[in-house]
Amino acid sequence: MSASSQNDAVLKPAKILPLLIVLGLGLAIWFVPPPEGVKEEAWKLLAIFVATVAGFIAKPLPMGAVAIIGIMATSLTGTLSIGDSLSGFGNSVIWLIGAAFFISRAVIKTGLGARIAYHLMKLLGKRTLGLSYGLGLADLILAPAMPSNTAREGGIIMPLIRSVAEVYESDPAKGTERKIGSFLMMSAFQINIITSAMFMTAMASNPLAAKLAGEAGINITWGNWFLAALVPGLASLAIIPFFVYKFYGPEIKKTPEAPELADGKLKEMGAMSKGEWLTGGTIILLLVLWIGGQSWSIDATTAALVGLAVLLLSGVLTWEDMLNEKGAWDTIVWFAALVMMATQLNALGFIPWFGETMASKVSGLEWTTAFLILSLVYFYSHYMFASQTAHISAMYAPFLAIALTVGTPPVLAALVLAFFSNLFSSLTHYANGPAPVVFGTGYVSMGRWWVMGAVISIINIVIWVGIGSFWWKMIGLM
Amino acid sequence: MSASSQNDAVLKPAKILPLLIVLGLGLAIWFVPPPEGVKEEAWKLLAIFVATVAGFIAKPLPMGAVAIIGIMATSLTGTLSIGDSLSGFGNSVIWLIGAAFFISRAVIKTGLGARIAYHLMKLLGKRTLGLSYGLGLADLILAPAMPSNTAREGGIIMPLIRSVAEVYESDPAKGTERKIGSFLMMSAFQINIITSAMFMTAMASNPLAAKLAGEAGINITWGNWFLAALVPGLASLAIIPFFVYKFYGPEIKKTPEAPELADGKLKEMGAMSKGEWLTGGTIILLLVLWIGGQSWSIDATTAALVGLAVLLLSGVLTWEDMLNEKGAWDTIVWFAALVMMATQLNALGFIPWFGETMASKVSGLEWTTAFLILSLVYFYSHYMFASQTAHISAMYAPFLAIALTVGTPPVLAALVLAFFSNLFSSLTHYANGPAPVVFGTGYVSMGRWWVMGAVISIINIVIWVGIGSFWWKMIGLM
Repeated sequence: MSASSQNDAVLKPAKILPLLIVLGLGLAIWFVPPPEGVKEEAWKLLAIFVATVAGFIAKPLPMGAVAIIGIMATSLTGTLSIGDSLSGFGNSVIWLIGAAFFISRAVIKTGLGARIAYHLMKLLGKRTLGLSYGLGLADLILAPAMPSNTAREGGIIMPLIRSVAEVYESDPAKGTERKIGSFLMMSAFQINIITSAMFMTAMASNPLAAKLAGEAGINITWGNWFLAALVPGLASLAIIPFFVYKFYGPEIKKTPEAPELADGKLKEMGAMSKGEWLTGGTIILLLVLWIGGQSWSIDATTAALVGLAVLLLSGVLTWEDMLNEKGAWDTIVWFAALVMMATQLNALGFIPWFGETMASKVSGLEWTTAFLILSLVYFYSHYMFASQTAHISAMYAPFLAIALTVGTPPVLAALVLAFFSNLFSSLTHYANGPAPVVFGTGYVSMGRWWVMGAVISIINIVIWVGIGSFWWKMIGLM
Repeated sequence: MSASSQNDAVLKPAKILPLLIVLGLGLAIWFVPPPEGVKEEAWKLLAIFVATVAGFIAKPLPMGAVAIIGIMATSLTGTLSIGDSLSGFGNSVIWLIGAAFFISRAVIKTGLGARIAYHLMKLLGKRTLGLSYGLGLADLILAPAMPSNTAREGGIIMPLIRSVAEVYESDPAKGTERKIGSFLMMSAFQINIITSAMFMTAMASNPLAAKLAGEAGINITWGNWFLAALVPGLASLAIIPFFVYKFYGPEIKKTPEAPELADGKLKEMGAMSKGEWLTGGTIILLLVLWIGGQSWSIDATTAALVGLAVLLLSGVLTWEDMLNEKGAWDTIVWFAALVMMATQLNALGFIPWFGETMASKVSGLEWTTAFLILSLVYFYSHYMFASQTAHISAMYAPFLAIALTVGTPPVLAALVLAFFSNLFSSLTHYANGPAPVVFGTGYVSMGRWWVMGAVISIINIVIWVGIGSFWWKMIGLM
């Protein structure tokens, strides 16, 4: 075999059919004249955005490559300046996500993760479903005190699940992800969304929604938020993990021998090593910074960088480890592309136009119908967003205003939109900060994610609107 | 050996003495009260910037780790917002540099680089010095037509040298970098600086200098720039590679058998593979875009992304290859930190203050002395910059204004500052776009880079001011 044909053998071109579909979709939107009121650049960006997301799904190439091509397209076509095209890489959530990957590497590398995983197994390991609820409880306890849902899921829960999966030998690289990891990851992601909806302080931009409601003259407090969310929140927390268990369950369902096994492993591990102590200390420091951060004006990403600095300085994590953590770099690139496009779609006026269009459609309807339509549109338009903050900033205030115009009870309108601002995150693998973190571990395929996400979105809506209505009537919101 | 002590063994903490020196230096500046006219944040940022650069040199940890800690420090201390702290990652030059690494991987992977390297060996391989001048000639020919010096060095010359080094088995990973790679890299980097100085269109921000001169009423044209630079430029091109050869020469100096050997290898390689054709075609496309880019308003980074997209779509380069190209990610991180700090140092008013201070010092001196001082300060203040554009934007106009006030002949003042805006790039491994690209290949150590850079800066100044003066008198500039 000659050198030449050897080289030819390694060419891995884009898959033609998916590529044609993706390009076709993008070009179809591109060449449709934009609706009145939509700027040409905004429409072109929409075409590129839709094609990029379609590319993530149809995968003519891996996501990172599709993202690079998407970024290139925004700049080459003159839709965005090169500065705007690359602006996603300077987004602080992107680096919080990256830091979560790096920190989880330290948790795994030192064995601290395995140790905690064995303790969890000892306590809750008899049934995988129990383990999932146990992790959910941990999230719920941390939630009111930890405003960064990305830090909570990425910095605490995800490293734990990765470690649990490792001790059960469930690894996407070996095709054994479904043994236990896939279920725990998907379930924890969905739980994190619910805990984020339950407290004003459980998600970084919940207070933004409250503030925007305040500007519309509606008083949303920590207390009335919590009270209104309590019953539907607990219902979702009970039902969703069970649903995931039924339809995307783990292969390892019962492990009656797990507690004993874990006990043995813990004895084998012996005392905690210096690396484990350092990692544990770092995570406690991170918890303190993530919980107290707002009072000391320390951003969640800054806190994560502090933790990373401690791990690097103490030598628990090396720069080489960070460079080897390919999941982090992969996620940073594809998520930066989406965050950038979604941000620019708003900046170019597409989202505001969308809001105005909605307003004209629902005016004249009865408030119950009008508000249901409004809130569903608000919910499902999250397919177009790669950030909760961006979605809230762009759409919360106008949609609330329309809801009030058609006669929706003010506090109800403000709270439902605020709850939906969290619940809509179930939809995609780029919906919020935790999504790419969990997706980046490779345990849940994209197809599964989108299907499960769509079904769970319906369940959540039914719970929050259905059970919620009764509850809100009881507490006098309706 | 227990698991615990095994884990302890892998801790690689920061080296204490270098760490203390770096922290000491930073804290010393931090706690000195800022001079009058300098904002406290600007002074704090200077402390972090100096500590970061000192950290790059003293290396308590690898550069990437130092950069992460530096970014963390700017945000944790409240010196910069987290958004500003991370803004370097959105800088377009950073991604041009990254793209250069990825493209060079394709050149190496397909064997195209080796093929061209063998052709070069066949033509010029008898003497390594000849090879270096040959590569310099290629740079010189491309320079007037290719305004991005980063694209020229990173996209064309660097991949070639990497391939040449590979066929000579000169590889930093094996400790054989000095065989031929180190010399060729350092020499090509210095040549690229000179070619950038010689034509208004050979460096992306040369036209900016000309425009700023125009705003001061001085007419700088492509022609008078070229004419003034011609003699000192050719002198530098002749002398500098020879100097590098004498003091940082390759171990392989003469290879009389190289042409024959190369010929044999070329026969062995046979016809060009599909991957080579595709890579070659991509590079020709890149050359067209980089050369014609300005007329079609295609940014150099956009062009690089187009090339990258072609390589990805055709399967020459895979996303996995990109993730594995650790030099790219390493360079992206540490360079982003420096670019961010240097940009913010200007934004916070430190550089403007520095300019005003200079003005007061030189007023009243004779113009020859005053302008010599001014231009040297302009030159060596580049230790504080990670971008030629940033340095020119911040300092060119004020320094030109002061030079005119003290009576320097206008065209001379404008041109010397413009030439120095390129020549100052010899100093550091972060001085301009090409610097991190070349440094990132690992062929030249940082110590060597700084020492050679300092000495070459003096040689260039002597050539351009010394030989330049005679020449400029002849053509009537003085």
